[in-house]
Amino acid sequence: MRGYSEHKDDHLRRLRRIEGQIRGLHRMIENDEYCIDVLTQITAATRALQAVSISLIDEHLRHCVSEAMAEGGALAEEKITEASNAIARLVRS
Amino acid sequence: MRGYSEHKDDHLRRLRRIEGQIRGLHRMIENDEYCIDVLTQITAATRALQAVSISLIDEHLRHCVSEAMAEGGALAEEKITEASNAIARLVRS
Amino acid sequence: MRGYSEHKDDHLRRLRRIEGQIRGLHRMIENDEYCIDVLTQITAATRALQAVSISLIDEHLRHCVSEAMAEGGALAEEKITEASNAIARLVRS
Amino acid sequence: MRGYSEHKDDHLRRLRRIEGQIRGLHRMIENDEYCIDVLTQITAATRALQAVSISLIDEHLRHCVSEAMAEGGALAEEKITEASNAIARLVRS
Repeated sequence: MRGYSEHKDDHLRRLRRIEGQIRGLHRMIENDEYCIDVLTQITAATRALQAVSISLIDEHLRHCVSEAMAEGGALAEEKITEASNAIARLVRS
Repeated sequence: MRGYSEHKDDHLRRLRRIEGQIRGLHRMIENDEYCIDVLTQITAATRALQAVSISLIDEHLRHCVSEAMAEGGALAEEKITEASNAIARLVRS
Repeated sequence: MRGYSEHKDDHLRRLRRIEGQIRGLHRMIENDEYCIDVLTQITAATRALQAVSISLIDEHLRHCVSEAMAEGGALAEEKITEASNAIARLVRS
Repeated sequence: MRGYSEHKDDHLRRLRRIEGQIRGLHRMIENDEYCIDVLTQITAATRALQAVSISLIDEHLRHCVSEAMAEGGALAEEKITEASNAIARLVRS
């Protein structure tokens, strides 16, 4: 069981759709489609990936971090540091 | 007391420095400095603001959310939703 | 011919690799891998997409916008507005 | 004269407003205001800075890069490389 298990099917469906978007980008470049149209699709794929990461962070806090906090101690501290580092990477990317 | 109280002076110092960066940007444009140099400074100020927000999120999780979780119940849920929404705004900005 | 034609193979190769990263993400969630490891991979895929978009913008300026500017007039203005809007979408995403 | 000269007053006004936002952030932390409210204001200031940078990029392309392209040659190439690098820094920040 992971923090995201409850919405696992939803995440898998979203990732399949993103995979389709990336294949669509490949096809657009193969067919020499207009640069700006390719860029618009890249923005859409990037936002879709962000949406998945935002859900995962939420569920990670709600389950994994929450449980570690209930137990308290050093593990709880570690879990928060780990989550903060992941958030920092997302904010900076 | 807030999540960030322990590092309050550090945050205040960082914000003063960012205020100085913004005033520096104002001066650069007033003096007609080169566009690309202005852009480089904007990137630096944006990253400095991100660094403050990443610290605040970390301390918010470590204190406010942590305490709400220790009490449990609806308040804990609410605090996580609120934190996730703040994280989402940062990731998307 | 498009702005990116000269590096078309390179872009196609990069997109194939990103498609592989997305499939890898799907597999990670299917196998219930740890949330933070999934998030790290999402950050990597997002950055890889950004790198493609940065190359496309560069080549678009270097070729499409450059040619429109050589002809001048309203078309050049339009091309710059279009490029600026695409850049704005990338910066905000 | 710079690319942004035509809208110089507008940029200066916007930067003054952002300086006010940063001072507001300083005051919020000084007054121990709620972490999430501080984060919301940081997001607003970051977006305001992004808006300035997007305008500057647009005007830089429209004037500086455009003029270099009209002259052509190595300088035009250099100007595009320089602009692309600035765009890359903004997209990644």
